[in-house]
Amino acid sequence: MPARGDFKVKRSSSSPVDVAVIGAGAIGLSIAWRAASRGLRVLVLERDHPGAGTSYHAAGMLAPVAEVTPGEDALLSLGLRSAELFAPFVSELQRASEMRVGYTRCGTLLVARDTDEASALERELALRQRLGLEVQRLRASAARRLEPGLAPSLRLALDVPGDHAVDPRTLVAALAAATLRGGGELRTGTAVASLDVAGDSVRGVVLGDGSHVAARQVVVAAGVWSGSLGGLPAERLVPLRPVKGQILRLHDPAGPGLLTRVIRMGPGGSSYITPRGDGRYVIGATSEERGFDTSVTAGAAFELLREASELVPGVSELVLDELTAGLRPATPDNLPVIGRAPRVDGLWWAVGHRRGGILLSPVTAELIVAGLVAADAGDGRHHDDAAGLDGDLARAFDPARFAGRVTIGTAA
Amino acid sequence: MPARGDFKVKRSSSSPVDVAVIGAGAIGLSIAWRAASRGLRVLVLERDHPGAGTSYHAAGMLAPVAEVTPGEDALLSLGLRSAELFAPFVSELQRASEMRVGYTRCGTLLVARDTDEASALERELALRQRLGLEVQRLRASAARRLEPGLAPSLRLALDVPGDHAVDPRTLVAALAAATLRGGGELRTGTAVASLDVAGDSVRGVVLGDGSHVAARQVVVAAGVWSGSLGGLPAERLVPLRPVKGQILRLHDPAGPGLLTRVIRMGPGGSSYITPRGDGRYVIGATSEERGFDTSVTAGAAFELLREASELVPGVSELVLDELTAGLRPATPDNLPVIGRAPRVDGLWWAVGHRRGGILLSPVTAELIVAGLVAADAGDGRHHDDAAGLDGDLARAFDPARFAGRVTIGTAA
Repeated sequence: MPARGDFKVKRSSSSPVDVAVIGAGAIGLSIAWRAASRGLRVLVLERDHPGAGTSYHAAGMLAPVAEVTPGEDALLSLGLRSAELFAPFVSELQRASEMRVGYTRCGTLLVARDTDEASALERELALRQRLGLEVQRLRASAARRLEPGLAPSLRLALDVPGDHAVDPRTLVAALAAATLRGGGELRTGTAVASLDVAGDSVRGVVLGDGSHVAARQVVVAAGVWSGSLGGLPAERLVPLRPVKGQILRLHDPAGPGLLTRVIRMGPGGSSYITPRGDGRYVIGATSEERGFDTSVTAGAAFELLREASELVPGVSELVLDELTAGLRPATPDNLPVIGRAPRVDGLWWAVGHRRGGILLSPVTAELIVAGLVAADAGDGRHHDDAAGLDGDLARAFDPARFAGRVTIGTAA
Repeated sequence: MPARGDFKVKRSSSSPVDVAVIGAGAIGLSIAWRAASRGLRVLVLERDHPGAGTSYHAAGMLAPVAEVTPGEDALLSLGLRSAELFAPFVSELQRASEMRVGYTRCGTLLVARDTDEASALERELALRQRLGLEVQRLRASAARRLEPGLAPSLRLALDVPGDHAVDPRTLVAALAAATLRGGGELRTGTAVASLDVAGDSVRGVVLGDGSHVAARQVVVAAGVWSGSLGGLPAERLVPLRPVKGQILRLHDPAGPGLLTRVIRMGPGGSSYITPRGDGRYVIGATSEERGFDTSVTAGAAFELLREASELVPGVSELVLDELTAGLRPATPDNLPVIGRAPRVDGLWWAVGHRRGGILLSPVTAELIVAGLVAADAGDGRHHDDAAGLDGDLARAFDPARFAGRVTIGTAA
């Protein structure tokens, strides 16, 4: 990295981009595409290839209702808003990319296999009814009429017709294409070593090879890997930890038909079978706090297959195509961080989406791009209502909540 | 393929090799190495790369005692003889190849998890005692002292100290190296389309690209793919069917120590965990009659993991490295075919070893190479006693037993 003096000389000779986005996952590319289509000059920097990180492993469930957690009202509102945005987002993306995005308006069933699970499911129903969400209680027989692949041992089900799914890999491919067609630039194989911050402003980023990219604004969307960027004191970075998810991909040699809806079971619907609509299925997922370990273990594969085949016996006949593990980016309060970095003009965070990164891509892009556009136009005000969110709601995801935090477990 | 007339002209201008071996698996390469070391000019023809077929998937258990089947006395004798040959075979191979062969004199435990399995295991013990085989009954507590990784739910075990294991992939690599160092030639990526048989003699083979390889003798060792060779009427080929085996490879991130012996359970020890001695394990295997299908299914992976982790709970912590499926080559009587083809001088079969191909490689090589050497020297007599087998025993594996068979299930 050159000394600051050299560096200023270099900057003056190269024209900075309007926005540099760090990370070409679903979040980063959604922001890049929308920013480019608003007329900003966008450069995406990706250390690997588009969607090679957590997006590669994600199942792609768009499930704000199935995943409701008591006390996370702000996240529910954000998820519902993004789920609402999804259909027009995909329509426009398919036009812009001339690619098909595997978006399936399939609906979701939450299911219980025994009396304990049925009691838990009744409580889940009550919670969703209190929140005014669209959900219907189904007897086992009615659920099996909808999904004959379900095991006879089924006890109870909740129909969540508004929770759908998308294939994150085709989504990312379309986003990359749309970004490029919209005039954005995408540099793959390009690791970012650090943010370049001078005083209270960002000036760009420094790459792994020491070279500098000048940018008027910088968006950090590198998921769980965003926590190790240089250029800011550690306590001013968003604290992120990886939550490992092991996941299986399978296909039915007999073609589609085993399932048409997403089937979810267990606490919060944490175990699931997601049909792609073409005979392919995704079975997931573990939640493990094991650092950056991405190994696939015998025990996890066994448990995932056990739950899925108990619930849908036909799963046994599926062909196993992939066993992988991804890393969900989680913050200390398990909520995403979406917005302007405190005390650094031009720096934006779009990280920490944990298990909701695919669902939250459209709303995250709306929020961030509204801010980028306003800042580019010299309008310093916050634009929290960009995605139809009121200020309180947007503030729930404000990066400022981690500003000046004390890092637990270190002497400092 | 050229007309016969052209072809004779071509032959006269090129010097035939002494022996062409079709197939570079454990069987074909064992024959090639031993034949080359006896001074024969050997050419191995392999459509893929060495060991890419069934050898790639095999667990490598050397287990004639664990796998005893009532009524298969000849196979037991052959297996015991080959197990006896294994240690000197490996010693010589390691010298010849200057490579390490992963041969582990680990011993084997056959185990029972409940009273039904324990009764079955008592019968297995009685059978082996009648046959005078080395096997010892162990209480569960004694077995768990030997292998503390076994589950407390264990009921009974049999100790089979003479059944060992080898890593088929390192075995094949060493065999290929020894063959080349011994003066043999190995052509990979070279598919054989048909045998070239004129009258009652073999003259070589015709390759997939139509070219001809002249050979005085030809050994067919292409496993289950040997059944589709051209050049002989179908009823004079050895009838072979694939028996699919799904198998898992894992490793322990904590290093070796979970198990030191092969653990086998179920009928005939069909389910097993094989330790490689370095923290790697192989868990197998299904036996499925599904043609040439080699897909890995959810049901098989689940069952293999279920059995293994019930028996050795620590299996849950292992990292899954590979899930694959191989095709065991089986004949109508499930016995191998080792010897001279009836009514075709110079043609030899070394196929149909089903689950015993790795174990039986040394004895198959001894039998075939003794015949090749004698025929090369113009000595027409059979040399059934080559590997210390009497004539009756060798005849149990004689290709002639399938000569003139009627193919079941076709109008012809």
